[in-house]
Amino acid sequence: MANDKKMVEDITSMEEDFAKWYTDICKKAELVEYTSVKGCMVIRPYGYAIWENIQRILDGMFKETGHENVCMPMFIPESLLQKEKDHVEGFAPEVAWVTHGGSEKLEERLCVRPTSETLFCEHYANIIHSHRDLPKLYNQWVSVVRWEKTTRPFLRSREFLWQEGHTIHATAEEAITETEKMLGVYADFCEQYLAIPVVKGKKTESDKFAGAVSTYAIEALMHDGKALQAGTSHYFGDGFAKAFGIQYQSKENKLEYPHQTSWGMTTRLIGAIIMTHGDNNGLVLPPAVAPIQAVIIPVAQHKPGVLEKAAELQAELQKAGIRVKVDDSNNSAGWKYSEYEMKGVPVRIEVGPRDIENGECVIVTRHNREKSVAKLDTLAETVAAKLQEVRDGIYNKALENREKRTYACTTLDEITAALNEKGDGFIKAMWCGKEECEDKVKEITGVGSRCIPLNQEEISDKCICCGEKAEHLVYWGKAY
Amino acid sequence: MANDKKMVEDITSMEEDFAKWYTDICKKAELVEYTSVKGCMVIRPYGYAIWENIQRILDGMFKETGHENVCMPMFIPESLLQKEKDHVEGFAPEVAWVTHGGSEKLEERLCVRPTSETLFCEHYANIIHSHRDLPKLYNQWVSVVRWEKTTRPFLRSREFLWQEGHTIHATAEEAITETEKMLGVYADFCEQYLAIPVVKGKKTESDKFAGAVSTYAIEALMHDGKALQAGTSHYFGDGFAKAFGIQYQSKENKLEYPHQTSWGMTTRLIGAIIMTHGDNNGLVLPPAVAPIQAVIIPVAQHKPGVLEKAAELQAELQKAGIRVKVDDSNNSAGWKYSEYEMKGVPVRIEVGPRDIENGECVIVTRHNREKSVAKLDTLAETVAAKLQEVRDGIYNKALENREKRTYACTTLDEITAALNEKGDGFIKAMWCGKEECEDKVKEITGVGSRCIPLNQEEISDKCICCGEKAEHLVYWGKAY
Repeated sequence: MANDKKMVEDITSMEEDFAKWYTDICKKAELVEYTSVKGCMVIRPYGYAIWENIQRILDGMFKETGHENVCMPMFIPESLLQKEKDHVEGFAPEVAWVTHGGSEKLEERLCVRPTSETLFCEHYANIIHSHRDLPKLYNQWVSVVRWEKTTRPFLRSREFLWQEGHTIHATAEEAITETEKMLGVYADFCEQYLAIPVVKGKKTESDKFAGAVSTYAIEALMHDGKALQAGTSHYFGDGFAKAFGIQYQSKENKLEYPHQTSWGMTTRLIGAIIMTHGDNNGLVLPPAVAPIQAVIIPVAQHKPGVLEKAAELQAELQKAGIRVKVDDSNNSAGWKYSEYEMKGVPVRIEVGPRDIENGECVIVTRHNREKSVAKLDTLAETVAAKLQEVRDGIYNKALENREKRTYACTTLDEITAALNEKGDGFIKAMWCGKEECEDKVKEITGVGSRCIPLNQEEISDKCICCGEKAEHLVYWGKAY
Repeated sequence: MANDKKMVEDITSMEEDFAKWYTDICKKAELVEYTSVKGCMVIRPYGYAIWENIQRILDGMFKETGHENVCMPMFIPESLLQKEKDHVEGFAPEVAWVTHGGSEKLEERLCVRPTSETLFCEHYANIIHSHRDLPKLYNQWVSVVRWEKTTRPFLRSREFLWQEGHTIHATAEEAITETEKMLGVYADFCEQYLAIPVVKGKKTESDKFAGAVSTYAIEALMHDGKALQAGTSHYFGDGFAKAFGIQYQSKENKLEYPHQTSWGMTTRLIGAIIMTHGDNNGLVLPPAVAPIQAVIIPVAQHKPGVLEKAAELQAELQKAGIRVKVDDSNNSAGWKYSEYEMKGVPVRIEVGPRDIENGECVIVTRHNREKSVAKLDTLAETVAAKLQEVRDGIYNKALENREKRTYACTTLDEITAALNEKGDGFIKAMWCGKEECEDKVKEITGVGSRCIPLNQEEISDKCICCGEKAEHLVYWGKAY
């Protein structure tokens, strides 16, 4: 039990220092390791396995909605990046520049892609000529680079992994439908598979993606009451098409500009999982993306029959499609309990000689540490049901946290009071639509606009800042 | 049929110009498209889907042999690249250098990884302390950059996709076993799934990976008689461990240096598939990695019941795990035949009203254009058997080409004569082991050493060049 104690002491508690608690989990659960490459990290096997599960599920959802994967170069020539004015303004200050190949200076600098709209546009211009070539529904799984000043594992790093969807359509309507559809796919993914409740909304003008007509996002609330943007979906209109000379011959034989979208989710989702579900014992993983969904801990494993039974149970669970591990190492049971709590394994199964005699075992669910006794001969069904129970349990807990921390306010003073008394959270407040009011809210209260939720309510008819006619309900918050 | 003719005319015949035939296929089968990023390419959906199948199968083989995926940064600080002398000498002349982040000059240049040994070593030094931390069996799926002067799609590009396995072991024996095991995995993969026969061997000293003690490779012979290195596996000894200060406490409580390996396969495999199996009608894909394994062409599809039957057959084949597409577009049957021949779809199924009446359909296998009639009610089994037949058929054809083009020679004149009379191919000839003889063979005959095959034969006891005592049988050839 000495080991057990030691491990738990190793994490800072979240109440003491949430930021330190977060990085402690990243390290102790062996998700990442720092490197001498400033702002970049090693994603270790346990962290990468979570990402592989995210990828597999999302990729399936993309393919089901008709998307195909491609792969663009990682470099963008400076002249190509500059073709769309807003886009280059937004990204040029934060790109990494390649200036030399071997010992030779390049004729033209190349940036490492911060995002790939410009490359997709160049490609579209090559392959799209007729309405018969539309739509193209593309996606790629790659890493991108943005030269951030301050970085944190998963949340903000100079290189991060993501998927970027890029689509091009004959009409604006089709492109807008696509933008909204993918926002829906993102929300479903977060809620169903990551058990993270999200708010679907539109970004304000000042918060749009560089070059977009409109940016949609899903916003989640972390355990500490700060908001995290979990995915974005952009509608570009025909701005990029005009900048890159992409045109198609319509059915009516006219030359038309097509309409585009892009949408992305990143390894940041792993940060969202940690900060939504984690606790002072470590990670709590949503079963759908947990590398190990159930761990079997043999008790008194030196006794005859225990390890054999553990192996038998493992085989049965595996057959039922459950990702299961037996830990038959020489570490103490207490050490093992702590270890798999730290790693957030949703279900722990303890099985010893007496359990085997009784045809039973003990099941402990990670998120609430509830113990129950289960029959060995129906274990696979029980574990499958427990995994669903865990997903629902952590989803409801996260939803409860968000409700508790969502404050409807009608004056700036109310915002300040709510934040002071109840801590950080989402502020729901009305807004007139003017950028100066948006800025002033932030200046005075510290919360910025997160999104204009698609589900609008009218909690007042006046802008919380200027008192003039309100145009939108806005979610405000401090953000990661 | 006009369309049919047009498409076939679009490819240069391989007898006329093999290099042109190759790039024609890359473009016409929609595998890649050029970009304004010199030496880099877009991998289009059809090309990328082949890579996804390669990835899925190989990744499964890696996991079955105990490997875990990780992800290292894409950048390497110059000082880190320089830590191992041979390694930096080999790679520094061909790396891309990042010198600026945004508008600021970096304190230290970063190269875009040409390969990641140095990053793995830095990570090992952080996480390996005891014999209990060994072995680590890692892999990553990423892209790397090498600043090549002349490039060709898939075969040689400035950026390419690959997997790089990196492992670290307590003993030299374990590491050598790993190196050889992964060479075996590569050979099995190529032969079973890509239907490409390969020669397993060791590289000569002059041809080793920068920093390796020994490099193993699998060599394949392309249709034109040129050799292609399809995968490599390196044993590093403890050279990197010493350069990077990686040490572990042994069971006997002594500080020891561990031993390392790395191994990689790349998108070059797609080039190997094209040049091994392709013909003058286009691509011929091995069934295991074909994005579409069977295409159903409805004949007289306007007739009642034809499209319904096609959809029903598609559902049945899908249920049997076959990747199948129905082309019910308005293009002519002739156009469709050409299109799917160009795309290398292994099996074509033609089904029209009369076939349906008879409960039959026509099956055509792409590689030999053989037609047969199959019963509709057992179509899934028939197609599965045909796919195996295709794999075996194209493997045997490739093996036959290699045998026909492998020439055992005992004098340099014989080499020249064989190449002149029979065309390019593998030369089997004995070698004393001296680099000057290796160089001289190349200078005089034009063929370089490809590998020292693991299956050694003694076709003479004298070096083909100097006539002194032979040490090894060597495969020689011109290479891609």
